Parts: sequence; structure tokens; C-alpha cells
Amino acid sequence: MTDYPARSAQVIERCRQLARITDVPGETTRLFLSPATREAHALLTHWMQAAGLEVRTDAIGNLRGLLPGPAADSPRLLIGSHIDTVPNAGAFDGPLGVLLGLALIEELRSSDASFSFAIELIAFSEEEGVRFATPFLGSLALIAQLEPDTLQRKDDDGISLAASIRNFGLDPAELPATVADPAAAGYFEIHIEQGPVLEHEDRSLAVVEAIAGQTRLALTFSGHANHAGTTPMGPLRRDALAAASEWIAEVERSATSIPGLVATVGKVEVPGGAGNVIPGIVTSTLDVRDARDQVRRAAVEHLLESAAIVCAKRRVNVAHTRTLDQPAVPMDHRLTNLLAAAVTQMTGTPARRMPSGAGHDAMIVARRIPSTMLFLRSPGGLSHHPNETVLPADVEAALAAGTAFLRSLSL
Amino acid sequence: MTDYPARSAQVIERCRQLARITDVPGETTRLFLSPATREAHALLTHWMQAAGLEVRTDAIGNLRGLLPGPAADSPRLLIGSHIDTVPNAGAFDGPLGVLLGLALIEELRSSDASFSFAIELIAFSEEEGVRFATPFLGSLALIAQLEPDTLQRKDDDGISLAASIRNFGLDPAELPATVADPAAAGYFEIHIEQGPVLEHEDRSLAVVEAIAGQTRLALTFSGHANHAGTTPMGPLRRDALAAASEWIAEVERSATSIPGLVATVGKVEVPGGAGNVIPGIVTSTLDVRDARDQVRRAAVEHLLESAAIVCAKRRVNVAHTRTLDQPAVPMDHRLTNLLAAAVTQMTGTPARRMPSGAGHDAMIVARRIPSTMLFLRSPGGLSHHPNETVLPADVEAALAAGTAFLRSLSL
Repeated sequence: MTDYPARSAQVIERCRQLARITDVPGETTRLFLSPATREAHALLTHWMQAAGLEVRTDAIGNLRGLLPGPAADSPRLLIGSHIDTVPNAGAFDGPLGVLLGLALIEELRSSDASFSFAIELIAFSEEEGVRFATPFLGSLALIAQLEPDTLQRKDDDGISLAASIRNFGLDPAELPATVADPAAAGYFEIHIEQGPVLEHEDRSLAVVEAIAGQTRLALTFSGHANHAGTTPMGPLRRDALAAASEWIAEVERSATSIPGLVATVGKVEVPGGAGNVIPGIVTSTLDVRDARDQVRRAAVEHLLESAAIVCAKRRVNVAHTRTLDQPAVPMDHRLTNLLAAAVTQMTGTPARRMPSGAGHDAMIVARRIPSTMLFLRSPGGLSHHPNETVLPADVEAALAAGTAFLRSLSL
Repeated sequence: MTDYPARSAQVIERCRQLARITDVPGETTRLFLSPATREAHALLTHWMQAAGLEVRTDAIGNLRGLLPGPAADSPRLLIGSHIDTVPNAGAFDGPLGVLLGLALIEELRSSDASFSFAIELIAFSEEEGVRFATPFLGSLALIAQLEPDTLQRKDDDGISLAASIRNFGLDPAELPATVADPAAAGYFEIHIEQGPVLEHEDRSLAVVEAIAGQTRLALTFSGHANHAGTTPMGPLRRDALAAASEWIAEVERSATSIPGLVATVGKVEVPGGAGNVIPGIVTSTLDVRDARDQVRRAAVEHLLESAAIVCAKRRVNVAHTRTLDQPAVPMDHRLTNLLAAAVTQMTGTPARRMPSGAGHDAMIVARRIPSTMLFLRSPGGLSHHPNETVLPADVEAALAAGTAFLRSLSL
């Protein structure tokens, strides 16, 4: 039919419908293998089967719909995103990629396109990591990288991951069967940008070149708590917060000087602090991301060094622990170039290429399967928030570009 | 006898003995009109009576020992400090002033000195403000400035101040009788410095010229919370913590440029903050003190203006509320000059004069009665801490200077 406005409206309406399926009435909160997940599976299964897909739930709870290829051993394109959410989420972070994937399949089937490959649509059960404080359970299982230890992790109610799988009627012993078919030759994920760049540039779409690498640190500044009224300014003070503040200003200044790099102090605490006490201890976080690993590593070293310099002159100690050190994950060149060509063709302007500052299932899947990602503009840069949304015209553009991409693809 | 080393040792031993009387076993925590206060009163009464004082407990729980003067209407010198403590306190903040006062009386009586005035030793029941979140209850009652509303304030157990007075066996209706005798012509308080200045200058004593005025503010910086990975550095960020940090550095820089002024940000919070989220809201405190009211007021205005400037360029809002605005309280010139002369005479070097950056009972009493204060060096600048201490030689110097001061005094 190629009525993209109608399909776009349907995709948005389906996302909204899914958002009403929640574990917490009055908001959208859908946790891994929860009652709401079962209900979401029922609705998605209905839509997938109506589109002609063979639907199954694998042992980690990923809902998977297969459109077989011309032969039993035809190469297979995976299209996916996740359907779990953060607490009090919006309707599009995750589900949009699943329902746009379904709409692409519907569009291609309605246009009688014939493909040399099979398509498997995957609604990953877990990306956000809320229930077991461990993200990417669904995609890790898909590439056989779910650590056996992870099955013993417990949720807030003391239920292990293994037990939660059994409680959902699935069998952890079947986890090997969740692994992607050896014929899987590509992975395509569509996601909202979750940032302000496309809106600022007034663009609908971007092609993701890489998932940025990420270093997270926890820092502790230790000075000396003293009476705020009786300790003069100057060298008799060892103010941990003044030290941390000088450093935070340097984090911002220094990161701003390196295009593409982001560095953020998201948390600062003054444990036991009081208005009339010079802070003795301050803890903070640091989050540094860049698509270029060497740039990120150099920035982290520079920022740690500048913390040491700021603190040394104040007789404040600074210590840090690295809580995450995750290299950048480049997307597949060939697939990404094809996707960019499709975007260029449909929008009439050269495709915007950008790194993703956030992690996505594609970051995991790309370890084993050539992967590519398409971003849609996030109005207000908003995500993980009930007001998160998408523009219908952007969904239309994604449908058009996605269709062109799939038509141009050989696997 | 004038054996200052022996008297000094006794003062310190008595402070330590009092510190073992506590509401919380294993630490020194003595709250207003608590069981420990009753026990402390018994011990102090014993010591005071042995020194020849007529002892009573007034209706706010101040323990008062009178050494009558030559006539019934002789002028009266008040000597005092407080015996309540902060939680997990040291032995000297407060009690030292009471027990040095007692030692001065013992010293003067043993040397058969004759005085033209009466001396009333006051152990104030409440200065720290822990139990009813209201400081200076004892000294406010002494000068008839305890607001009637204050009697309705409740402690953490829901007991009102009035009820706590009755539970201690006292009668709130008798509060008017707590007011200082009309003959009270001077107030003398000895206290630890609670700061590092005397230690840094290697001095035993200082004479307090004024209690610094104090402004306390609560500030809220409101930017916009965004994803730390997907929001580039620069104008698309409205980072409330980067704004607050730039301002905190300016607070320190600016206060350091004005000798005598102190300005401290003691608390910073990022409510709901997370390592991977650009802070949208930051709250902080600001505490500004100076013995010169116009200097303090100008500094507060400058710091609020610089917060506004820092925030405006970042599209961050800043709002503030003033939680305290307390003018400086000068000590009495004549008494302070006499005290300085006594210190100069006993130490052989010109007395160090300094403002007190902390509040003390003298700050309240001075509203009605000419007041003066003597500071003793605080090793490590430490107070409100179990390791708070005094040096025996400094206590000896205080005894010698205090004796000389009292001998030189006419009221």
C-alpha cells in the first residue's frame, strides 16, 4: 500500500496501546517477565501472527517472530529492540523499534516484495536492567554471552533470574536455544535518539556509526571537616567540596574543548554535611563517553590528573574506583553505508551520521552479528519520561528509509 | 594557693568526669533537661556548694551558684557557659567555661581576695539547640527573651518544652524568676575557640571582640535533567551542578579576598541524581559570617549576584531563601579592654583580639548585660567531636588571666 502516514499512525497507536500495559497502574512500568510482560506478549503475538510471522518465546523471554526465507538455510536478518521499560517510562524507548520493525515487514509483504533472506523480529525481554540490576539480558542470551552466574542474581523480592524464568513458564535449560540462528547475518535496530541533537538540527533521522565507549568512575574527595564560622578562609581550610567544585568546572571546560566527547558529574554528595560545617568528605560520579576509545581514555586520564592537581594544592585527598569501562562498539560498515544511502535517498539530504551516547541491544548483538542502527528525533531530547514522544513525520521517514534499506539489502 | 598547674589539672579532670555523664552510653551526649542533665546537676551542685556557693536550679534548668557580695545590692558579675552538648560531643565545649569559672571562684576565695561585687556562676541548660532545634534556651530565659511560643515546641518524642520543664520538676510559671538580677552588671564567658587560629599562631588565649554576624541561605539551581550520554557538551546542556560548582568556586575565591570574612557551602544535593543523568536540580546552603555587618551584607549581595550571572549564561535558574540573618554582636569595650590587659599582663605579649565565628551564650546575654569572652586554643581546631581537647598550659594561662581580670574589675 505504501501509505506511510497511515502506517506511521498505526505504529504510534500500537506503541501507545502497549504503554497502557503496565505493572504499575497509572504509569508505564514493564519489568522483565512480569505480569505486564505476559500481557504485552499476548498483544504482540496477535499482531505478529496477523503479519504472517511464526511466533515463539525463547528461554530468556524474548518474543520472536520469524518470516521464513526462500530456503530453510536462507540468511536471516534480525530486526529488534526491547519491550521492558524503566519505571514510569514513555511509550517509545524500545517498543518503537519493535513496532517499526513489524510495520516494515507488513509494508514489504503488502508490496509483494520478495527477499533472498529470512527476517526475524525480536522483542527483547530485558534491556534496561531494572529488575535484576543487570541490563541487556535478552541480547546477551541471543549471542550466548549470558554468564551462568547471572542466573543466580536476585530481584528485590529475592527471586533469582532462573526462578523468574521458570515462574514465567520457561526453562533456563533451554537457554542455548535462544542463541541466534547461525544463518543470522545482520541485525537492524531502530530507536529514539534520547538526545537533543536531531531536534536541534531539525532532522528526522540519523544513522548510528558506533555506540560510544563509556567509563564510569566513583570519586571520593577527603579534606577535613571544620567549623564554618571559626575556620578562616585560606590554607587552614581543607574543603572537600570547594575542591570537587573546582574539578567539576574543569570537567565541563575540558570536555567541551573536545568535540564528540561528553563528560558528566551526575551525582555529588556531602555525607553528613551541614550548612555550618566545612565539608570534609565529598563523593561524586564521573561519566565519560566517546565513540573513539583512545579519546575517551585520554580524557579520563586527564580528568583524574586534574583532580589530583586541584586536590594537592588544597591538601585534599582524592581517590577513585572505576565502576565501568566499556569500549566503543562500531556498527557494521557495509550495513551502515546501505542504511545511510537509504536515508539519503528518502530525505534528499546526506544522511546524518552520529555516535550513540547511550547503550542499546545493538551494542551487544554487534559482538557477533553485523549490526546497524537508525535513530529518530526525540522531541525535547526526552526519554525515560512519560512525555517521551516521536513526530509522526519522523516515523514516516523511518518507514520509508527502512523499506528502502531492506530492499537494497543482500545478506 | 595559686597552684595553677594543680587547678588546671582539676578543671580538666572535672570536665572529663562530667563528660562521662551522658544520655547515650559510650559517648558524650547530654541533652536539655535529660536524665544525664539531672546527674550532671548533682555533681556540679556538690562542687559548687563545696566552693561556698548558694546553688539553685532556675525554671529553664540553668544551674546557678551565687557567691554573695558585701551588700545585698552589690553589683553582680555573671560567669557562665553551657553544659548541654551536641550528639557525640567532646568534654570541653561549654563545661570548660563553667568549671574554669568555678576554679576562678575557688582561687579567689583561697587567696582571701575581697570583692566589691557578687559572682553568680551559671551552667546554662541549653545552648546547642539539639533537643528542641532551638539554641540558647538558657541564656534567652536569663534576659527575658524566651518567646512564649517556644514553650510549645516539641522534641522528637512529641514532648513540648513546657512539659519537659515540668517533667524535670520545674515550673514554667516561674520563668520570670530566671531573669538575671537587676544588679547583674557584667557577664564573662570562657570557651574553647573551636577553630584553628590560635593553634596556628601558637597562642594560648584570645580576647573576643565580637560575635560575628551570620547569614544563612538555601539555594536551588534549576537546569534541565538530560541523558549524560546523548546530550552533547555546550549550549544543549543546562547542567545545574556545573552551574553550582562554578559558583561554589567563586564563593571561595571571593571570600578569600576579604580578610576576616568566611563563606562556606556546607551542603550540596542533587535530588534524584544518577551517574548517567545531567543534574536538573541542585540544592545548596551558603553560610556567610563577619564581625562587620556591612561587610557581610555586601558579600551576601555579591555572592547572590554572581550566582545569578553564572546561571544566566547557562539558562539555569537560581532561587534562594534566607534562613538566618543575624547581626554581629560586639562585646563590651570596657570589660574586653580589662580582659585584654589581664591577658597581656599574664602572657607577656599583647593579647590577641579576634571575632568569634561561632555563636555563644555571650551573644545572647550581651543584648542586656555588658559581656566579654576569653578563648582558649583548640588543638587541631577540633570541637563537636570526642577528640576535642585543651592543653593544660592553656588552662593555666586562662586561670591566671581570669584571676587578674577579676582582680582588676570594678562593677
